[in-house]
Amino acid sequence: MLKIEEYRIDFIAHLQEKINVVDPKNLYLPIEYILGLGGKRLRPILVFMGVTAFGEDYKEALDASLAIELFHNFTLLHDDIMDEAPLRRGRETVHEKWDVNTAILSGDAMFILAYQLLESYDGVNYKKLMQLFNKTSLEVCEGQQHDMDFETRDNVTVEEYINMIGLKTSVLVAAALKMGAIIANAPEEEADKIYDFGLNLGIAFQLQDDYLDAFGDTATFGKQIGGDIMENKKTYLYIEALKNSDTETKEELLSWYSETLDDNTVKVKRVKELFKQVGSDKLIRDAIQNYTDKAFTVLDTISISEANSFVLKQFGDNLMTRTV
Amino acid sequence: MLKIEEYRIDFIAHLQEKINVVDPKNLYLPIEYILGLGGKRLRPILVFMGVTAFGEDYKEALDASLAIELFHNFTLLHDDIMDEAPLRRGRETVHEKWDVNTAILSGDAMFILAYQLLESYDGVNYKKLMQLFNKTSLEVCEGQQHDMDFETRDNVTVEEYINMIGLKTSVLVAAALKMGAIIANAPEEEADKIYDFGLNLGIAFQLQDDYLDAFGDTATFGKQIGGDIMENKKTYLYIEALKNSDTETKEELLSWYSETLDDNTVKVKRVKELFKQVGSDKLIRDAIQNYTDKAFTVLDTISISEANSFVLKQFGDNLMTRTV
Repeated sequence: MLKIEEYRIDFIAHLQEKINVVDPKNLYLPIEYILGLGGKRLRPILVFMGVTAFGEDYKEALDASLAIELFHNFTLLHDDIMDEAPLRRGRETVHEKWDVNTAILSGDAMFILAYQLLESYDGVNYKKLMQLFNKTSLEVCEGQQHDMDFETRDNVTVEEYINMIGLKTSVLVAAALKMGAIIANAPEEEADKIYDFGLNLGIAFQLQDDYLDAFGDTATFGKQIGGDIMENKKTYLYIEALKNSDTETKEELLSWYSETLDDNTVKVKRVKELFKQVGSDKLIRDAIQNYTDKAFTVLDTISISEANSFVLKQFGDNLMTRTV
Repeated sequence: MLKIEEYRIDFIAHLQEKINVVDPKNLYLPIEYILGLGGKRLRPILVFMGVTAFGEDYKEALDASLAIELFHNFTLLHDDIMDEAPLRRGRETVHEKWDVNTAILSGDAMFILAYQLLESYDGVNYKKLMQLFNKTSLEVCEGQQHDMDFETRDNVTVEEYINMIGLKTSVLVAAALKMGAIIANAPEEEADKIYDFGLNLGIAFQLQDDYLDAFGDTATFGKQIGGDIMENKKTYLYIEALKNSDTETKEELLSWYSETLDDNTVKVKRVKELFKQVGSDKLIRDAIQNYTDKAFTVLDTISISEANSFVLKQFGDNLMTRTV
């Protein structure tokens, strides 16, 4: 069995053992529900990889991995309210299945359960885990706020966008790896390096999401191609396109992005043409390569065995060559 | 200057020093706003009283006191959304002044800031503070859920009601005192006793709130008399009244509590008559006395100086003889 499959199975068993529906049921049922919707369990797996990389048993990180998955799902509950999202992983969101109040309060409780799970660790490591967890959680909130602020702004720069996706998604990926390193008692400098590896890989991953949303293969991507364009989302592609357009192209782009249409066939086709025309597709591929290279450059400097380094490299390669 | 006034002044100075509006401003402005609305700062003062009771300098607890005030205000932000409350301390609530999304996210961030403030403590005390803070936070969420569940239930028992107010409000009062005790390195048994003192006093305080809402003096109570009756809130008075009514009175009560009126003069007058008729007013006064006595009985067993014990006794007396 692949190590990652083993991680996932053990994680799910731990989740089922630790998350129980107690009284008041209306508080805990939505928590069990959202955690049961599945997902790749990417963050817990990264915690395990962080431990293993530094030569310790990943099972020491079961509670930390569950804490980070709980935190992630807490942000999903609250983000889904803010985005008025009807579906999550193909199923009703909590605020749809129950109501907004339930989604707020069960989210809050899930966040506290995450903190409680970290009580399994002691002494210096406990404090280190808490400091990282607090810092990361606050950054994720800041990222979400920037994302909401960007909706009403027309002058978002590429740097601001990268900063936003870094905060909203990549710091949690980075923190997952570093929590593993802390639990494995890695030296602080090494733990910081694996954090940097995760941060850069996370940014590359998110940019690739932007790229695939527009230029992915319908057959393999899973989601509808052009979803970001239909929703007028100001992704990296759009920001670079606006920046590099002549007046006429810029006006056309702004015009497309001021409309919400029933039939998006022409809009998606045309905006993609404009993205290509001004070179956004190439710029984003360069950026993805750049952040991936940065990640792998840091990885090479971490003092871990060749074999453990190879596992992380392979994991990164798999993420970055995905077409879905 | 009274000690409590000194506490309050130092607390507010600390709040102003520590809570700054940084980027993204839309996340931090609402936090500054709600914290600036004032209030009695009861919970921070209780943290200070807990430290002083065990002979240490209350200034060691400045960060903990701010953490507990941040947590309390985080619950207010989210509760106000759930209750659709337009006003908080006479000013617009955050979800009214900004919007629901802002109130959710700024609340989340405020909760994380509370956790970050506790990082000022180290070692065993840090872990103890965190465990207490986690447990208490989760209990407050559970209390809020019970409160929401009760709205649609007709068979809430007195025991369930006491349990609910205990979780929703009293555990935080109790935890404030115990956090002070922990910071003062009090023995665990003594810290537990001051927790029990706070828990019982908190329940008495909440029951007195129920009593004054119906039977308080309009001139001194501040709030409108009969607010709970107008809103059909199932307080201790109502639950005891239903329990002790004959069929006819029970039907009349249920009938009043199924209506929402524009002019509540007759309703408030009549429901108060019914409460008195079945003895709810006496039962709640007995319960208040009972929980106050329990609090003071525990207080007498705590190993602290007479002078420090007297301060806590006096504080409790002041709370329980209030007419506002």
